Amino acid sequence: MSTKAKEEQNTAESILADIAIKAQLADYSPIKGCMVIRPYGYAIWERIKEILNKMIKDTGHENAYFPMLIPESFLQKEAEHVEGFAPECAVVTHAGGKELTEKYVLRPTSETIINHMFSKWIESYRDLPMKLNQWANVVRWEMRTRLFMRTSEFLWQEGHTCHATWDEAQQETLTMLDCYKTLLEKYLAVPIHTGKKTQSEKFAGAEATYTIEALMRDGKALQAGTSHNLGQNFAKAFETQFTNDQNQLEYVYQTSWGVSTRLIGALIMGHHDDVGLILPPEIAPYQVVVIPILKKNKDNTEILEAAKTINNELQAAGIRTKLDDRVTISQGHKFNEYEQKGVPIRLVIGPRDLEEGKLEVHRRDIQSKEKDIPRDGIATRLQKLLAQIQKEIWQRAVDYRTEHTTIVKSIEEIETALDKPGGFARAMWNGDVALEKILKDKFKATIRCMPDDKELDASQHPCVLSGESSTNNVEILVARAY
Amino acid sequence: MSTKAKEEQNTAESILADIAIKAQLADYSPIKGCMVIRPYGYAIWERIKEILNKMIKDTGHENAYFPMLIPESFLQKEAEHVEGFAPECAVVTHAGGKELTEKYVLRPTSETIINHMFSKWIESYRDLPMKLNQWANVVRWEMRTRLFMRTSEFLWQEGHTCHATWDEAQQETLTMLDCYKTLLEKYLAVPIHTGKKTQSEKFAGAEATYTIEALMRDGKALQAGTSHNLGQNFAKAFETQFTNDQNQLEYVYQTSWGVSTRLIGALIMGHHDDVGLILPPEIAPYQVVVIPILKKNKDNTEILEAAKTINNELQAAGIRTKLDDRVTISQGHKFNEYEQKGVPIRLVIGPRDLEEGKLEVHRRDIQSKEKDIPRDGIATRLQKLLAQIQKEIWQRAVDYRTEHTTIVKSIEEIETALDKPGGFARAMWNGDVALEKILKDKFKATIRCMPDDKELDASQHPCVLSGESSTNNVEILVARAY
Repeated sequence: MSTKAKEEQNTAESILADIAIKAQLADYSPIKGCMVIRPYGYAIWERIKEILNKMIKDTGHENAYFPMLIPESFLQKEAEHVEGFAPECAVVTHAGGKELTEKYVLRPTSETIINHMFSKWIESYRDLPMKLNQWANVVRWEMRTRLFMRTSEFLWQEGHTCHATWDEAQQETLTMLDCYKTLLEKYLAVPIHTGKKTQSEKFAGAEATYTIEALMRDGKALQAGTSHNLGQNFAKAFETQFTNDQNQLEYVYQTSWGVSTRLIGALIMGHHDDVGLILPPEIAPYQVVVIPILKKNKDNTEILEAAKTINNELQAAGIRTKLDDRVTISQGHKFNEYEQKGVPIRLVIGPRDLEEGKLEVHRRDIQSKEKDIPRDGIATRLQKLLAQIQKEIWQRAVDYRTEHTTIVKSIEEIETALDKPGGFARAMWNGDVALEKILKDKFKATIRCMPDDKELDASQHPCVLSGESSTNNVEILVARAY
Repeated sequence: MSTKAKEEQNTAESILADIAIKAQLADYSPIKGCMVIRPYGYAIWERIKEILNKMIKDTGHENAYFPMLIPESFLQKEAEHVEGFAPECAVVTHAGGKELTEKYVLRPTSETIINHMFSKWIESYRDLPMKLNQWANVVRWEMRTRLFMRTSEFLWQEGHTCHATWDEAQQETLTMLDCYKTLLEKYLAVPIHTGKKTQSEKFAGAEATYTIEALMRDGKALQAGTSHNLGQNFAKAFETQFTNDQNQLEYVYQTSWGVSTRLIGALIMGHHDDVGLILPPEIAPYQVVVIPILKKNKDNTEILEAAKTINNELQAAGIRTKLDDRVTISQGHKFNEYEQKGVPIRLVIGPRDLEEGKLEVHRRDIQSKEKDIPRDGIATRLQKLLAQIQKEIWQRAVDYRTEHTTIVKSIEEIETALDKPGGFARAMWNGDVALEKILKDKFKATIRCMPDDKELDASQHPCVLSGESSTNNVEILVARAY
């Protein structure tokens, strides 16, 4: 990596940490690589959970909970899987004052333990499909950690399903990828590319991995979620079989899929400015903060009552609000706090405004202020404004991605594009893994995915590696990534 | 313990396991003492979370998340705490392929790590009160485990708060105890005694522990939740200080409080019969199961449509329902499944019923069936029936407890009462710890609490140990416990 690239990386990391700390989303903990998720950060996670959990249930899944400890021998049953995860495992060797006869690893993901249970529960086609999900903490011991983006312990959901046919498993894999796309685009206002990973980038143990790839405002790509068609790999390792309707014994076809607290990292690096975080209204824990101008050691009854009335009015209209009625904290301090936290709208109520039937509305995403907004019909007005803000934050992210996507025809063009403007390089590829080695060694970049949204004509556009065009070539997105 | 008592214990345990497995609430896992919470059990946990989480937020708390790994040295900072928890800890000694320089324990509870963060976040009285809660998994390595009641890993919520005064901390401790009481009595239909624990039974590190004690149908008491006034114990160990409004440095006053998946154990052992679980409607994941009588290889369109219409009608009325439209499973099998799962009402729709505008309603708690319930107004009728079932399940539990509470005046009377009828022995006590030793050694019993609901006259009723009456004596509830 060039010095410039390294510098940019350091800057990006300090932006991430700076915003996360100042917005009180998270804090460093005394445990290596582990963070504390503070109430405001956790409230965002709860909002993500609320939205996604509904999608997961609406698509026919049930939640369950499996042990966090996994016998070390389980991990070893699937060859690729152990190779992928063993180096990152944290290991419990002692418990209850004694050394354990078999060591346990803290789950880095739960395919193994869940397959053990599947093989106990599934007997016949009548038991299929079995579609489970769990919300849980997982541990992957990382050398280099960053708040939200890569922490030794993180929170996630992991779905695990069993099906009678490969087609059904494939359909499930894509259905969940689509749920993730909706979550990211409609709620987080983060545009993503869906697509398949290359063999070298797929999940350890999967037949195929599908990803949602986002672009952060520092020009780096982020794998924001993945959905795997596991084929029969784990089923064979764990003997997860069923009797089909022809009375024959078969291995089940499986999927797994997950998103994590990394999504909060996607929000931070997707939407921010020099002041701090900018939250899309759909995902903001509170969309409007109501701040009455209070005076220390004076009677604030009237203005507080007015603020409460307005606050109730907004909530009744379905707007998520917070009323900040603290007298011990100055107004300037409050303004600053909510700007750093990215609250979409600040509604300020002063004594004079009240008399005149007017309110001050501050819009966080463009830091604009309007002083004379009529008090009457404020809820309807703010509802419309929130919808507009959501739309504009989304459009800015789309525009940024368009400006940071370069169509390239050679390795040299990839290099240039990665440095400036940064972001994605869109290319054709003949599938030769030599390209992935070059990208990794020379540019610290990877093929993020073979995108579903295609723009190039394979018969015309040459492979970046061979320079030859062919309808066998595949379209790829290349980027430096988190 | 007598042979009889041991036999009863084994029977009770097999009842617990039998119901939990057959109702598909949980299953054994290959990890010692850890269970898998299956979808139906997890749905009950989600319902508990939904209710309690609202209470926790309505009383001014915020959710957060702290690391699961705790440096071993943290546990040792509070003397009583380490003594209480060190023997039960699971220890991570290796991670990322290397031996760790400092070992981590898997949180048995989080006072230590949270206090470390509190001391970083709290500076002045303006930061107080700080009232946090987390929903998390914890690990306590137990010798003898039982599904839901005592597992090596379990799910719970743990609240942790800091206050400027002792009085405020005490108020908080009792407020949360009261939330737990509401959860247990109003929703789980499990009557409980609130009360203070004796010094020997309190939480390791607390100044005082308050408990909710329930009575199970095997005559054993269950500590279903606790709320601790921690005083300044952890604050002193972790230097959690604040500048008060007189500009003086003080240690904060703290509380912590928690309930766990053990509550599902309370449901099982609180409400069951020979057939299986009996769920109170308020906590049931689905209150009504709608079963259309389907015929294999025949056209079931009409009856399925009718079932869907009725199901939607019930849901629109706010009733939680499940429509079981599986054709591959026989009707008898379905009836059996939902009876074992304790679903409060089974609504059966047969072709003839449809013609006649009538439905079959089966009530799980008393296993009664009515065939000719009018189709019209079914939602209103079932709403009323659900309320009635809730009330009657509650009353049966109250009656059971009344019948299994004996007022005693001597140690001999305690022994007799514990064997028959079993349950609680209510007594007076002069506070001499010798009693606790006798109870433990001779009867495997403990003082469950000094109940808030008092029935005895201290000046008249003698201490079970000394035989003397005194207004200094305290009222106690003694029982064998889970």
